[in-house]
Amino acid sequence: MENRLKELKKVTKKLQILNQNQRANLIQKIADAIENNIAKIIEANAIDLQNAKDLSPALQDRLKLDEVRIKSLADGIRDIAMLKDPIGKIHDGWSAKSGLKIEKISVPLGVIAMIYESRPNVTAEVAALAIKSANGCALKGGKEAINSNLALASIIKNSLGEYGGCIEYFDISRDEVLEFIRMDRYIDLVVPRGGEGLVKFVSANSSIPVLKHDKGVCHIYVHKAANIQKALDICVNAKCSRPGVCNAAECVLVDESIAADFLPLLKARLDKFSVKIHGCQKSVNIINCFEATDKSYYNEYLDFELNLKIVGSLYEALDHIDEYSSGHSEAIISDDYAACEEFLSRVDSACVYANASTRFSDGGEFGFGAEVGISTCKMHARGPVGVDELTTYKYIIRGQGQIR
Amino acid sequence: MENRLKELKKVTKKLQILNQNQRANLIQKIADAIENNIAKIIEANAIDLQNAKDLSPALQDRLKLDEVRIKSLADGIRDIAMLKDPIGKIHDGWSAKSGLKIEKISVPLGVIAMIYESRPNVTAEVAALAIKSANGCALKGGKEAINSNLALASIIKNSLGEYGGCIEYFDISRDEVLEFIRMDRYIDLVVPRGGEGLVKFVSANSSIPVLKHDKGVCHIYVHKAANIQKALDICVNAKCSRPGVCNAAECVLVDESIAADFLPLLKARLDKFSVKIHGCQKSVNIINCFEATDKSYYNEYLDFELNLKIVGSLYEALDHIDEYSSGHSEAIISDDYAACEEFLSRVDSACVYANASTRFSDGGEFGFGAEVGISTCKMHARGPVGVDELTTYKYIIRGQGQIR
Repeated sequence: MENRLKELKKVTKKLQILNQNQRANLIQKIADAIENNIAKIIEANAIDLQNAKDLSPALQDRLKLDEVRIKSLADGIRDIAMLKDPIGKIHDGWSAKSGLKIEKISVPLGVIAMIYESRPNVTAEVAALAIKSANGCALKGGKEAINSNLALASIIKNSLGEYGGCIEYFDISRDEVLEFIRMDRYIDLVVPRGGEGLVKFVSANSSIPVLKHDKGVCHIYVHKAANIQKALDICVNAKCSRPGVCNAAECVLVDESIAADFLPLLKARLDKFSVKIHGCQKSVNIINCFEATDKSYYNEYLDFELNLKIVGSLYEALDHIDEYSSGHSEAIISDDYAACEEFLSRVDSACVYANASTRFSDGGEFGFGAEVGISTCKMHARGPVGVDELTTYKYIIRGQGQIR
Repeated sequence: MENRLKELKKVTKKLQILNQNQRANLIQKIADAIENNIAKIIEANAIDLQNAKDLSPALQDRLKLDEVRIKSLADGIRDIAMLKDPIGKIHDGWSAKSGLKIEKISVPLGVIAMIYESRPNVTAEVAALAIKSANGCALKGGKEAINSNLALASIIKNSLGEYGGCIEYFDISRDEVLEFIRMDRYIDLVVPRGGEGLVKFVSANSSIPVLKHDKGVCHIYVHKAANIQKALDICVNAKCSRPGVCNAAECVLVDESIAADFLPLLKARLDKFSVKIHGCQKSVNIINCFEATDKSYYNEYLDFELNLKIVGSLYEALDHIDEYSSGHSEAIISDDYAACEEFLSRVDSACVYANASTRFSDGGEFGFGAEVGISTCKMHARGPVGVDELTTYKYIIRGQGQIR
């Protein structure tokens, strides 16, 4: 493993000398190669699907690659090739008192390791994002997708010619993963993308900096000045459009003064999706629902299940979010200017919305092309992570012989 | 400890509601209080100096606070108050396809813990930097400065009135430090500033993100097209002006074509400071010096001691730096445009210089006011860390009822 990582680091140095057009061309080659090998990919994927017969239909569907999906994957990769280049961007520049000219300029991180579960698309998407940002990448996918991942990795590597060594797929056991995430001499960043268990395991054991994609306990606060129709649409969208993702809402906070009118309307809409509601004592007095405990409010259900709480004021909503939110995404629904601004300013989460669904916390929706994931860290990158977040910076300083 | 940190986090929330003028006023109050309590600080410092009689004169000097130094500390803190406010800066903003208006805006990190050795000034400087960036701060200084630190911390807290709780000094044992650096519910960032042992201990044991101030194995590469006079001045300055700091040079690389002329001149200048030189085999043939081993080149001497290596080309210099540098600061001395640009672009260190001494890698010299330290991490902050690096960002998204 160490030798492969050493070689990966070495080839990555070569990649970093290329200009942006050359890197974009490499990404186009990945897209072409994927389209030219559809049959091969489907064949490998069929073995994974055969082995996955005991998994839930939803998981089987996530795993599945067909012609349409593979073509759409290739198109997505072409979009990444066309993104604005993230490298060599001058963030800042000034002349210091000494006369030195200082520039703060974006540069690649180095080698990025991605440990992910399920969807084999990630293999190709992350490879493309890495090359776009002039980084090498070490991939380790879930074992349920191993044949699809190996086929994709091999197609990608071949398409890159002498730069094929920038992408390495590691088919390793859990014990070896432990060794892998301590290879800080060769890897600059580890991104775990998957269930809570995986993220916790990597965070607890890695000696390399970790970009966490933690849980999303997202809140919608329906303020007393909310447009009721918008509030209903947004609550339903945030919970029900795709309950299994991290930007789905897990809790709706409703202002006390409108609760008696709003809750029955909300319940009627949620009942269409058979959403199981856990409400506070006051909610239970208004609608028929389960009673929530203090602990319920920490839950990320990732299912048709929702917490509900009636709050006396904006500040009670802010305090609740402060305590129970995972810092991912929260929204206020209100037509009141001051309330919206106060909420946007006070809430300490990666994405804070006024009058929109939390479901927009997504690299694609933000316009980043594909995303590496959504960070709940405060350090380095927060929220949707695109190619810009796969860079660091350095200072370039030009002098005329200055000494100090 | 947990209760104090909980309270610190709570008061920090109050601090974050203040506007920039109110925060700047708090910092002015710290400066005034320090100036008004010079006698008290000197008294406490005298006890530390009394206890430090067995330390080296250099360390005793670092520990010492007199009227001049305290006044200069107060002035430095007033400079921090006047810095451009790092909070609420809009890094980027755009309209997404959905019509959502997205802003990426700088916000405080939360609570910053600083674990430092020796100089008691740090107590006041970090408190001021934290308040400037609307962060709370948990301080833990070295035991040799405990009386000075406690006196300063108490003066600072008193000067802040109801916001005094934003600054907490922890007089705790090493065992308790272990507990401290796992308080990730209350602390957002730990900055160890001190010897290699401290940095390693914190990095290895913290569950909180760590901003490392690792060693500085800095290089000066004297290219064949170097202006010899400038090269000599810069090498001597980079090694001898303050050999005990991380931005001091530890190795000079000299182009083979000029080595026979340059090395004797360099040795003559270094001899004035009695610098012990460890040279490669080729150097030993030119000047009288110790022979370096491959391992020598990893050394951070922090003393009047220097590695020397003759290299055949710019690329050999780059390869050497790649292997032995700690990623802090490197410089090329050359009048050749292409060589300078190649060096500036290729070297992957926090600060890369053309024709200037590495000693300028410093928050003050960069114009950041005081500095928290110099980061050798690639994630979040790299190079001199000022108030801008004590922030994170969030996305503020304004909609008109958008659902997805």
